[in-house]
Amino acid sequence: MIVVLTGGSGGAKLIEGLVAEIDPAELTIICNTGDDGVFHGLHVSPDIDTIIYTLAGLSDSDKGWGIKDDTFVALEQLQRLGNEAWFTLGDKDLATHITRTRLLREGRALSEITDHLRRMLGVRSTILPMSDQRIETRVTTPLGEMSFQEFFVKAGWAPAVCAVRFEGTDKCRPAPGVIDAIRHADAIVVCPSNPITSIVPILSVPDIRSALMATSATVVGVSPIVGATAISGPALKLMIASGFEPSALGVARCYADFLDTFLVANEDRGLIPALERLCIKAVASDIRMPDRAARRRMARELLALVRN
Amino acid sequence: MIVVLTGGSGGAKLIEGLVAEIDPAELTIICNTGDDGVFHGLHVSPDIDTIIYTLAGLSDSDKGWGIKDDTFVALEQLQRLGNEAWFTLGDKDLATHITRTRLLREGRALSEITDHLRRMLGVRSTILPMSDQRIETRVTTPLGEMSFQEFFVKAGWAPAVCAVRFEGTDKCRPAPGVIDAIRHADAIVVCPSNPITSIVPILSVPDIRSALMATSATVVGVSPIVGATAISGPALKLMIASGFEPSALGVARCYADFLDTFLVANEDRGLIPALERLCIKAVASDIRMPDRAARRRMARELLALVRN
Repeated sequence: MIVVLTGGSGGAKLIEGLVAEIDPAELTIICNTGDDGVFHGLHVSPDIDTIIYTLAGLSDSDKGWGIKDDTFVALEQLQRLGNEAWFTLGDKDLATHITRTRLLREGRALSEITDHLRRMLGVRSTILPMSDQRIETRVTTPLGEMSFQEFFVKAGWAPAVCAVRFEGTDKCRPAPGVIDAIRHADAIVVCPSNPITSIVPILSVPDIRSALMATSATVVGVSPIVGATAISGPALKLMIASGFEPSALGVARCYADFLDTFLVANEDRGLIPALERLCIKAVASDIRMPDRAARRRMARELLALVRN
Repeated sequence: MIVVLTGGSGGAKLIEGLVAEIDPAELTIICNTGDDGVFHGLHVSPDIDTIIYTLAGLSDSDKGWGIKDDTFVALEQLQRLGNEAWFTLGDKDLATHITRTRLLREGRALSEITDHLRRMLGVRSTILPMSDQRIETRVTTPLGEMSFQEFFVKAGWAPAVCAVRFEGTDKCRPAPGVIDAIRHADAIVVCPSNPITSIVPILSVPDIRSALMATSATVVGVSPIVGATAISGPALKLMIASGFEPSALGVARCYADFLDTFLVANEDRGLIPALERLCIKAVASDIRMPDRAARRRMARELLALVRN
């Protein structure tokens, strides 16, 4: 069993490669829920949905979120009825949020609901939210504190970032199956997701970081940063605000206490000695995954690393 | 001010005629909510919506419900996710239910929400739910008791009807504005809606029937029945189950204690003496309203009756 820690779009690319190389049923995916939000009274779990849609072959890989060829009829009408519509929700996508919200209100846990949704869409991999309790990533900016979606989507990640915190970690626990999956994994992959707002929220759930430190499985990470540039999104400014240097080395420091091996870009080969001083085995490679072939190649490379 | 008591599609035709003949702002519409239901966790008020959509020029007059040219992308996906989808909800229509449900959960009253929705869609008439509290029309059949929508839509109104009851009338009161509207109306129109499941639920709300009996306004009704045939829907079997003869005379008996004038079909001219024995002035006319011209003609006829 391979266990993956992931956020949304960056991780989805690697996961798409992995399920093309191994039996999808051999994969357990632990998903960030710190970016979850309530829009129009509906509970949206953007990262879980991106992963489900990717594995169901439904994802819009051009946009990196949502369902391909979706329509936006309900959202336009919501706007006409006076609702804010800066968070784009397609009509098919809405069906997911409507179903999730109904089941949550009926008292079902997010983990149960996630399992139901992925099964209904024919996904064979196990998908686990990091926690069934609500943890919210809050971003402090000069304009005030906001949710991650308000920062990322509404504000177009333009504001300066002063700090990032995770609300609710004191009252949450890992979702059922998360700790067992980490304990019994053959290998664990930390996806090239935004470290601060995709991976660190998972690590902020009590017992997850210590389970990663204790597991006998090899833990392999892939850098989401090449040189001083994030492959996508606001990773760099979030890292600086959180006290990490904006580089693959800074990412490695976030994971240093449990990471065995780290894949960095060929351009970052010069960081290998510094990574080794963190007791991390570093491998330089072409870590960009613009297409399906690159995603499969990256998956094969990772699998070779963990099988050695 | 003209006050209208109505259900969905039958009443909507007459209301469409009325707003073509008078200033729409001079119309207050009291709507049945006994058919309201929760689908996919969303609160649907079918009669209120039919009236709002009709007055906003959005209604699908071929179907008698929903929004014209609506799409059904979310509903198909809801079905794919394992949800029952016998109650058809379009994508634009869903925006109404999503907005209503969010506002209800935020503690807003159905009457406030209805007012918000009609204003956002540019509707100038006042639309009032009969009550802000939940009243549910329950239909007893040999297959068991069911909601009106389960009987009407899911079962295609095929089952025999043993009884009809209204759950919640003991704990409800008229929505703000309902009693005042009846008291101060210049005229009151009882639409040609299903008497048992559209008008009687309104009358079952405490104080509404007595306000109708006490008002000085002329109360005019239009029969939804021609001979022994309902113009549409299951009115006849519901009337029989409720102890009324299945005819315009039976409808008049439902309203006898407050009705001043009743429009019946020319074919039912023979019922006029019996109606007069109920102290109801009866007028025979062509009461079918297949098109816009017929709806305006019927509205003009009604207005002439109340102005005399």
